[in-house]
Amino acid sequence: VSGAARQVVVVGDGGWGTALARLLVGAGLERVALWCHDPDYAEHLDRRRTNPRYLPGFDIPPSIRISADFAALADGADLLVSAVPTSYLRSVWSAHRAALPPGVPIVSLSKGLEADTLLRPSQVLAEVVGDALPVCVLSGPNIAREIAAGLPAASVVGTPDAELARRVQATCSCATFRVYRNPDLAGVELGGVLKNVVALAAGICDGLELGDNAKAALVSRGMVEIARLGEALGGQRATFYGLSGLGDLLVTCMSPSSRNRTFGERVGRGESVEDIAASMAQVAEGARTARPLHEWMHRHGLVLPICEEVYRMLHEGRAPREALHALMTRAHKDEARDLAP
Amino acid sequence: VSGAARQVVVVGDGGWGTALARLLVGAGLERVALWCHDPDYAEHLDRRRTNPRYLPGFDIPPSIRISADFAALADGADLLVSAVPTSYLRSVWSAHRAALPPGVPIVSLSKGLEADTLLRPSQVLAEVVGDALPVCVLSGPNIAREIAAGLPAASVVGTPDAELARRVQATCSCATFRVYRNPDLAGVELGGVLKNVVALAAGICDGLELGDNAKAALVSRGMVEIARLGEALGGQRATFYGLSGLGDLLVTCMSPSSRNRTFGERVGRGESVEDIAASMAQVAEGARTARPLHEWMHRHGLVLPICEEVYRMLHEGRAPREALHALMTRAHKDEARDLAP
Repeated sequence: VSGAARQVVVVGDGGWGTALARLLVGAGLERVALWCHDPDYAEHLDRRRTNPRYLPGFDIPPSIRISADFAALADGADLLVSAVPTSYLRSVWSAHRAALPPGVPIVSLSKGLEADTLLRPSQVLAEVVGDALPVCVLSGPNIAREIAAGLPAASVVGTPDAELARRVQATCSCATFRVYRNPDLAGVELGGVLKNVVALAAGICDGLELGDNAKAALVSRGMVEIARLGEALGGQRATFYGLSGLGDLLVTCMSPSSRNRTFGERVGRGESVEDIAASMAQVAEGARTARPLHEWMHRHGLVLPICEEVYRMLHEGRAPREALHALMTRAHKDEARDLAP
Repeated sequence: VSGAARQVVVVGDGGWGTALARLLVGAGLERVALWCHDPDYAEHLDRRRTNPRYLPGFDIPPSIRISADFAALADGADLLVSAVPTSYLRSVWSAHRAALPPGVPIVSLSKGLEADTLLRPSQVLAEVVGDALPVCVLSGPNIAREIAAGLPAASVVGTPDAELARRVQATCSCATFRVYRNPDLAGVELGGVLKNVVALAAGICDGLELGDNAKAALVSRGMVEIARLGEALGGQRATFYGLSGLGDLLVTCMSPSSRNRTFGERVGRGESVEDIAASMAQVAEGARTARPLHEWMHRHGLVLPICEEVYRMLHEGRAPREALHALMTRAHKDEARDLAP
């Protein structure tokens, strides 16, 4: 495809990184590489051509180069994909700073916020690689397993650099993966963060067995809060109603395997937050970000009733039924005011 | 509640009308009446205090007056609720024009468009009752069975008359039913019409077993089309992202019993449109409105790829897999342009 990258390194062997590497091969790219942190696991991936830890059940095409040697893979690359979990983002890219090919753009797939700094992944990357490498983000309703299975999906590349956006579109698009562009990088990236608290609340609805009316209302009103907070944090309100905001929220609410939804469901069923957290290998992102979002909300003077109640349930022992009653009996509101652009 | 109506007649004994009459009693209203077209069935409803035809499994409180005598019920009423199916709307209200208490507002619950005129229910009512009675609409993710079961739900009253809106909020609100107001009557009412085609498309996704990524993307991109067409038809773009648009679309997509979703699912599985239509007692609204929406779309010069493909599948024998391929391989787009207010 005209404008498409010719040699791409996917940095990180997680589910989404591995699925995207496969997708790029399917999209016609001949030179795709997958970087894996652990040399032993890299050897396993290379020999067995499967990723049983993070994407079980799918093969890795023979044309994909696999190695733990970052410099060797990055040599000659004209696009880098950062598929590193947010918690390892800074250390991984810092370690390879010297080997980065100058001027080559990075597409970040990471979701969430860095634990201590509360920076977005693209902000962490910018701190690490400086202005030398342009950073954009790719985000949307993209469950890795479904994409690996060849099921259709759509996503958004967020960057104000229209040429870079078109290059990512040209590189990643194929008959099963459709990429839109959006200049609002912050908005695209924030959608994937803010949706987690609402998905957790939707899980609580499920746990309380409140039905489909309640869940649909929760998601609709949750969108108002996501757009309001996201705008205060630097995104464009409208962006949150696109694939990276609404789309990602919907897939998280629908998916039975979503950690945020599951966490919420158990809260709704009456389990204690401590017990749930102790039983899960990885803490749900929505549970982890409820506190910083709550702080941001108050700092910006925003009224976000659903986020407020989720915070109370997670951190102040508020019972889910009480939270529901509080949400249902607030003063009567004008919806148009909440939706106005 | 201050500002609440004191005597309400629900006109129509369908599922939603009956559930709303119960809800009004629960909200503390003492004088609630339910009008039923068929005198024999009215007698059954009154004696047995159940509605096995339209809301099986729920009782009808003894305080609700039930009759087929419209004039007797309407005497002294200060709010009328039109819970009549759109196909009977004109005939029912025309028949009772003489008995209408002057100046008493009508809250319309009907969804869809009148078959020949393509008028919205509130427009039909305005034609029948003239300017004498103000008409507003109540719409949102409101599956009647769930509301009858006392599960929480939210809805929107659409009218530019703020005083009437507050009156409906005061009358219908309780701890399990939350009513927002929105001055955009046309937008609130159109949401419930336009969502049907997208819900049908979501059903096709289910039938093709395309997964959650695809369905989330379809709903997100479907919202762009609903907002675009809805604006051309006289609504405010933002309204479609509220409870009466997005909210109603979500509940329709989630509900296994939705006719539109089910119709679509069977199309996706490969059944012929003729066979599906022949096997269903009531045609799915989305199938019925695909053609007029398609005409509107062309008349207004709008590009609505999902609506276009649904039309082709229903009326031109287009195979679902072909439609999917066409949607996935369109030219690359700027999402921000589609979402801009």
